[in-house]
Amino acid sequence: MSKIGNPTSRTRVVREPHRGIYDREAVYQILDEGLVCHVGFVSDGQPFVIPMNYGRSGDHLYLHGSVASRMLRRLDEGVPVCVTVTLLDGLVFARSIFNHSMNYRSAVVLGTAERVEDPREKLEALRKLSEHITPGRWKDVRPPNETELKATLVLRLPIQEFSGKARTGPPVDDESDHALPTWAGVLPMALRAGEPINDPRLDPARGVPDYVKNYSRKK
Amino acid sequence: MSKIGNPTSRTRVVREPHRGIYDREAVYQILDEGLVCHVGFVSDGQPFVIPMNYGRSGDHLYLHGSVASRMLRRLDEGVPVCVTVTLLDGLVFARSIFNHSMNYRSAVVLGTAERVEDPREKLEALRKLSEHITPGRWKDVRPPNETELKATLVLRLPIQEFSGKARTGPPVDDESDHALPTWAGVLPMALRAGEPINDPRLDPARGVPDYVKNYSRKK
Repeated sequence: MSKIGNPTSRTRVVREPHRGIYDREAVYQILDEGLVCHVGFVSDGQPFVIPMNYGRSGDHLYLHGSVASRMLRRLDEGVPVCVTVTLLDGLVFARSIFNHSMNYRSAVVLGTAERVEDPREKLEALRKLSEHITPGRWKDVRPPNETELKATLVLRLPIQEFSGKARTGPPVDDESDHALPTWAGVLPMALRAGEPINDPRLDPARGVPDYVKNYSRKK
Repeated sequence: MSKIGNPTSRTRVVREPHRGIYDREAVYQILDEGLVCHVGFVSDGQPFVIPMNYGRSGDHLYLHGSVASRMLRRLDEGVPVCVTVTLLDGLVFARSIFNHSMNYRSAVVLGTAERVEDPREKLEALRKLSEHITPGRWKDVRPPNETELKATLVLRLPIQEFSGKARTGPPVDDESDHALPTWAGVLPMALRAGEPINDPRLDPARGVPDYVKNYSRKK
C-alpha cells in the first residue's frame, strides 16, 4: 500500500486543515498507542458507536468478539464501518474561553470488514489483538481451544481510506488577550496504569510479570 | 424525566445483559466523568465517528464547534445521532486468553440534536461545557464576545433514549484453569493529569490555579 494515504473527500480534514495527517506510519502510531477504538455502523438508519478493542497487523485492523454479538454480525454483512481511535494528550487553557482547546491525536478508518475464516489467520489476529493490548502476554496464557475459537468472530478491516488529525502545543490567544491576568498553558493528560491487583484466587507468592508492572502505552 | 431510563430494543444491552445500566443517575456519572465523547452520524450511507467535547445540563447533552463544521451542520439537519462516552478502568488478565477482558464504563445516547438559538441558553451551554472540562475555569477567562458567539454553533441533544454498560472486578477464569502458573489480576487504568506547562508567553510569576494543579476526573 502507498506510504501516504490518498485522502478522499470523506477523510480529508476540512476544519483546521493543517491538523490533518495522511502519512500512513504516523496514523499507525496513533492506532498502535490506542487501547480502545470506537466503531460506528448503521442499523435501520440509526448510527451506533460502540467501544471495542482492536489489533493491527500490517495494513489491516482486526476486531473480535462473540459470534452472538449483534454488532459484529452486522459488520459481517459488509456494511460501511468507521473505526476511530482518539488519544487525549492535554487540556489547552487560553486567556479567552473561545481559544480553549485540547491536544489530541485521532485516526479514522473507513471501509467494510470481512470475516476471517482461515484458522491460522484467525489465531494470529487474536495474538495481534492480545499483543496490541499487552506486549508479552500471549506466551504466558492458555491459548484458545477449539470451542473458544468457534465462539469468537474475528473481522478484518483493510486500512485503505483513512486519515489522522492532531493538535499539539500551547494555546493560541488573540494578541489583545495577552494582557489579561489569566493563567494560560497546557495540562498534559494520559492514560496511565495504577498498581496491579492480584486475582483473589491467585497464589500470593506469584510475582507480577514485568509487562504488567511496567505497563505503558508510550512506545 | 423518569429516573430509570426505559431501554428500547436499540439501547437494551443484549450481550452480557447483567452489565447493562439503565439508571439515569448512574449513566450521568459516566457522562460527567468523561472528557471526550465519540459522535456517530451518517452521511451518504457512510457512518462517521468523530471525537468531541461535550457538556451536560440536566437531561441534555451539549455539543459545540465552529459554524463551519461539516459535522455540526449535518447534525443540525436533525439526522439521527449516537453519542458514546467510554471510561477505561482496567485491563483484566485471566489465565486463558479467552477470558481476558477490560473493566470499563460506557454510556450511549441516541437521538437528534437541535440548534440552540436562545443567546442566554447558548452562553449557559458554553459555560456548562467549560465547567464540565475544568470546574472553576469559567470565572477566570475572558467570556465569548459577539463575534465569537456568532462563529460558534451549539447543539442540544435530549438524553431520552440511553443506556450504560460496565464491567468491574477480577478475571473470571474457567475452574480448570486455576491450576495454571499464569499471573492473573487487574491493572487499573485511568486518564491522569501530568505537570502543568506554562504558556511560553505567560508571566512566569503567575501561579497555576488550584483547579489545574489538582485536576482530576474523579468526583
